[in-house]
Amino acid sequence: MRIASLQSQHGPFLGVRRGDGYVDANAALPDLPRDLGAVLRAGLLERLTDVEGPLVRDVTYRPLVSDPGKILCLGVNYIDHAKEASLQKPDYPVVFGRFTTSFVGHEVPLVRPRLSTHFDYEAELLVVIGRRGRAIPRERALEHVAGYALLNDGTIRDYQKRTSQWTVGKNFDRTGAMGPDLVTPDELPPGARGLRIRGRLNGETMQEANTTDMVFDVVSAIALLSEAMTLDPGDVIAMGTPGGVGFVREPPVFLKPGDVFEVEVDGVGTLRNSIIDEA
Amino acid sequence: MRIASLQSQHGPFLGVRRGDGYVDANAALPDLPRDLGAVLRAGLLERLTDVEGPLVRDVTYRPLVSDPGKILCLGVNYIDHAKEASLQKPDYPVVFGRFTTSFVGHEVPLVRPRLSTHFDYEAELLVVIGRRGRAIPRERALEHVAGYALLNDGTIRDYQKRTSQWTVGKNFDRTGAMGPDLVTPDELPPGARGLRIRGRLNGETMQEANTTDMVFDVVSAIALLSEAMTLDPGDVIAMGTPGGVGFVREPPVFLKPGDVFEVEVDGVGTLRNSIIDEA
Repeated sequence: MRIASLQSQHGPFLGVRRGDGYVDANAALPDLPRDLGAVLRAGLLERLTDVEGPLVRDVTYRPLVSDPGKILCLGVNYIDHAKEASLQKPDYPVVFGRFTTSFVGHEVPLVRPRLSTHFDYEAELLVVIGRRGRAIPRERALEHVAGYALLNDGTIRDYQKRTSQWTVGKNFDRTGAMGPDLVTPDELPPGARGLRIRGRLNGETMQEANTTDMVFDVVSAIALLSEAMTLDPGDVIAMGTPGGVGFVREPPVFLKPGDVFEVEVDGVGTLRNSIIDEA
Repeated sequence: MRIASLQSQHGPFLGVRRGDGYVDANAALPDLPRDLGAVLRAGLLERLTDVEGPLVRDVTYRPLVSDPGKILCLGVNYIDHAKEASLQKPDYPVVFGRFTTSFVGHEVPLVRPRLSTHFDYEAELLVVIGRRGRAIPRERALEHVAGYALLNDGTIRDYQKRTSQWTVGKNFDRTGAMGPDLVTPDELPPGARGLRIRGRLNGETMQEANTTDMVFDVVSAIALLSEAMTLDPGDVIAMGTPGGVGFVREPPVFLKPGDVFEVEVDGVGTLRNSIIDEA
């Protein structure tokens, strides 16, 4: 099953993908919340399986989860990216937080801020939590996954490096994207392992790796993070980006207005965003 | 006006302080949301000014804002704490994020996790945002403040230092506290400047400073953070902790079961929490 957080002229709704369109799950199930996080917290995801209705194709994508309790992002989680960024391979997850104001949906423009031209891309796999847990054992970790999606962990590099903590550079308004669909685990290999992940700038492959190249895989991330904190339905974990980001290139490559960046993971989909300048 | 997020046997409610008790604002205003963040987002705070009703005294405190869009925490924001932690005085705010699962309310026990005994206290002033804004000019920054409160930015030090990013050590379940009351700005000096801030462990003063000792004051924090990101009603900014934390002492002092830690800022109140071990 593939579910998107959408918006039409009639308001926000959740769409269940059928072919090249979506069935409006809220039209089919009038009491269903319109936010994916609320559906997950209420344990209602399964109810979307068999919804029927006319296909909607003229939609705008919202950020996949509009009100996650936590947006946990793993840094330096691919060995080649650790090398290129002159960072050590971590022996414990490097984690920073993003907030919802930093995200747009699929096919909604990312915004290069007035304050910086150092706007970099980061193609990532996103894990969406579906079941509450603390100190989750490795062998049960995947039972807590509602599904997988894609993330562009867009970063204002000069602000990221301005202090020891990356939070501000990772949280400029509308510099990240989340979507397009939540893909339930039955459609993918366990833990979304063995999938090719790519980042493409204007059609050119800038990042390419396999999800098996992660330092901490989905099972490890869930097990280790939940040692410290309760993972709640609707929480998301961004699994880090492979090598090939813009700021380490010679010369550096940064996103500029008119560019299009795509995050693609085999079987999960393609997250596509153009770039505009802040108004 | 002083407002608390409370819980009684009848469920959650917002209380408006009158003397040694609270008036149940939700009983007086049946359509009022029961979460402070929702009240702020709906622009309804002013409606609480004149609520009348019987005083409630047998209450449990919830974390002051239960669903903030952002919990932005300033690190190294008092010069004496920068010195004691061997960190440079920052020339730009050092920011990390906390999430709601890491908080309890006033007079609810903080939890020392099984994984670590390095549980440290941090007395802080908390700013609650009441008006949306981006790129807020300094001279208008204080118009965006709904009020002030207190925070114990409780930290698991060994996990904080395990990687370059502090997020995990700052987000163990129920290691922080937020409360007791939101104090509206009319009750305090502009920007809550010139107030004595103290952290007390079992009655002994461990931290003592003045809010004028902050590296980035409330005006600067709002102006600088909003250059990067939209500040929304219900967002909170923790203003950092003064010197005197436990891990730099000789020998180190860490919170253990049976301890009581208090955060006090003159005119804002006292946030008090005992410590228990994780069950």
